[in-house]
Amino acid sequence: MPKVYVTVIGGSKETDQRVLRIAEEVGRLIAEKGAILVCGGRGGVMEAAARGAKKAGGLTVGILPGFNRDEANPYVDIAIPTGMSQARNAINVLAGDVVIVVGGTAGTLSEVGLALAYGKPVVAIKGTGGVADLLAGRRIGPLTVYSASSPREAVELAFSLTERDVQTA
Amino acid sequence: MPKVYVTVIGGSKETDQRVLRIAEEVGRLIAEKGAILVCGGRGGVMEAAARGAKKAGGLTVGILPGFNRDEANPYVDIAIPTGMSQARNAINVLAGDVVIVVGGTAGTLSEVGLALAYGKPVVAIKGTGGVADLLAGRRIGPLTVYSASSPREAVELAFSLTERDVQTA
Amino acid sequence: MPKVYVTVIGGSKETDQRVLRIAEEVGRLIAEKGAILVCGGRGGVMEAAARGAKKAGGLTVGILPGFNRDEANPYVDIAIPTGMSQARNAINVLAGDVVIVVGGTAGTLSEVGLALAYGKPVVAIKGTGGVADLLAGRRIGPLTVYSASSPREAVELAFSLTERDVQTA
Amino acid sequence: MPKVYVTVIGGSKETDQRVLRIAEEVGRLIAEKGAILVCGGRGGVMEAAARGAKKAGGLTVGILPGFNRDEANPYVDIAIPTGMSQARNAINVLAGDVVIVVGGTAGTLSEVGLALAYGKPVVAIKGTGGVADLLAGRRIGPLTVYSASSPREAVELAFSLTERDVQTA
Repeated sequence: MPKVYVTVIGGSKETDQRVLRIAEEVGRLIAEKGAILVCGGRGGVMEAAARGAKKAGGLTVGILPGFNRDEANPYVDIAIPTGMSQARNAINVLAGDVVIVVGGTAGTLSEVGLALAYGKPVVAIKGTGGVADLLAGRRIGPLTVYSASSPREAVELAFSLTERDVQTA
Repeated sequence: MPKVYVTVIGGSKETDQRVLRIAEEVGRLIAEKGAILVCGGRGGVMEAAARGAKKAGGLTVGILPGFNRDEANPYVDIAIPTGMSQARNAINVLAGDVVIVVGGTAGTLSEVGLALAYGKPVVAIKGTGGVADLLAGRRIGPLTVYSASSPREAVELAFSLTERDVQTA
Repeated sequence: MPKVYVTVIGGSKETDQRVLRIAEEVGRLIAEKGAILVCGGRGGVMEAAARGAKKAGGLTVGILPGFNRDEANPYVDIAIPTGMSQARNAINVLAGDVVIVVGGTAGTLSEVGLALAYGKPVVAIKGTGGVADLLAGRRIGPLTVYSASSPREAVELAFSLTERDVQTA
Repeated sequence: MPKVYVTVIGGSKETDQRVLRIAEEVGRLIAEKGAILVCGGRGGVMEAAARGAKKAGGLTVGILPGFNRDEANPYVDIAIPTGMSQARNAINVLAGDVVIVVGGTAGTLSEVGLALAYGKPVVAIKGTGGVADLLAGRRIGPLTVYSASSPREAVELAFSLTERDVQTA
């Protein structure tokens, strides 16, 4: 059975504990469903999501902007340095079948745009601030950023959106 | 004297003549100021902006997503195929000292995010729809997307924003 | 204890069974040492190396040139589509602590150059033809491509070269 | 009439005055033929080639590895920072219709491989050392690196190789 990959995006400097708990819960639910968690590998939301996935025994991948695996957070199993700075955001979203947004600022904004441009469904969790709140339910050209009210709703929605056309590996 | 590079972003499939005229006017004003116009090299807003710059005798650069210069619009002087699809959006904004947004959908959204992540000032022209209207005046983390009401205001603002720290080439 | 990542490079269209057996043996030995195998994810040498690693219970990563995980060979555990065509070669070598070369043509040549440019040690297996034979023992600027005569010698040498400065993840 | 783009590659730290004069002569001849010179924008061979092109009134493009146009040599007209480090080598060769090699070390080696992988003809000038001497006349898989004995022979050969299938811009 093909594996599902879910990319979680959000701010690397997020410090709001409520938002970080939401990210961790998203990571946990993704792992419980047997999917691989992909993220940018850094701190904040990425670290919280990876920690949640690891607590549930999941597998985590971090696509890093720099040159060295040392920059990955400790919950990343597979760290891929790209040496491409923000251009790695394109890979980060391409690696997922679906993207879940928790808060976020400029880098996250770029990832939503890149994900939509690559035809990936995007689910934003309302109430997490930043880019997630800005774009939840918003139409961007012919596409819509899906809106979810909780980690569980986001993950359920994300998986339902991938069922139609999951890639295999 | 160092040259200024201005990146203009917007939808490749834009068909609204009013929006395309605005893009062309932006291109013309950039060229009249002696700056180099950078764009994604494709159709729609990019083509209109490049056409405007060429009519004013300017120099235009197109950073292409594909492998072949054939995909550039006819107003691009220097066409750079990247073979990197949407990841080329990162280069497109990095090549400019400042970014001007006219309308736009997913790719444009990503470029605004990438520009902000790279510390480039971004000016969105209100009333051109899409991403420009969504983000004009909006705060993204600690940064703000500047808002302008006309091509002239956008270009004047863009140049004033680059004066502090123009890169040289 | 930090994991070691070893990148194996070689032709995607390699059909020489002797060379493919060497690649498979390299993959097996890498996995037996508990390291993660990184490759370009496609056929030929990459597939043989990944198959060897999987037979030994290892973990394999494929950094793909295209947009879809479907293009990965069946022995890749974690498939990362980059959408960047040959530019993904830079990521492929950056993801490894050391690079082992088996045969290879143009893409492999580029990966040796990129690996050296990024300061990664490169070990070429003599007698596998192509780029490996061309560059084994060769000096490129101030650097030398190491030469090995067998899969075992190549893997032993590769690990000894990473011991000085293994990155952690 | 479509413009021809010629990429010149070679070491950024080349100090051999004879080799630098050859690079400068290559740049001059490219400009005299009305073609655009593309290079990596840095020092050494790239700077010499760009200087030669500028002395002959040509137009020069530099595809930079870093984030800032300041890193371009003074003979680059259009400087494109990519923020992608060595991965920019892929763009550097993709931007040319043909590639000319003068000396060179690791980065140059990668560019020859990338050029061949992208189907670009590559001409190496014998007697300039490094990668050029290593690969001149060498077969890489089904492809051959062309060999030339002088700047003039290299440029004549390069143009003849592009005549069959010049891209337009």
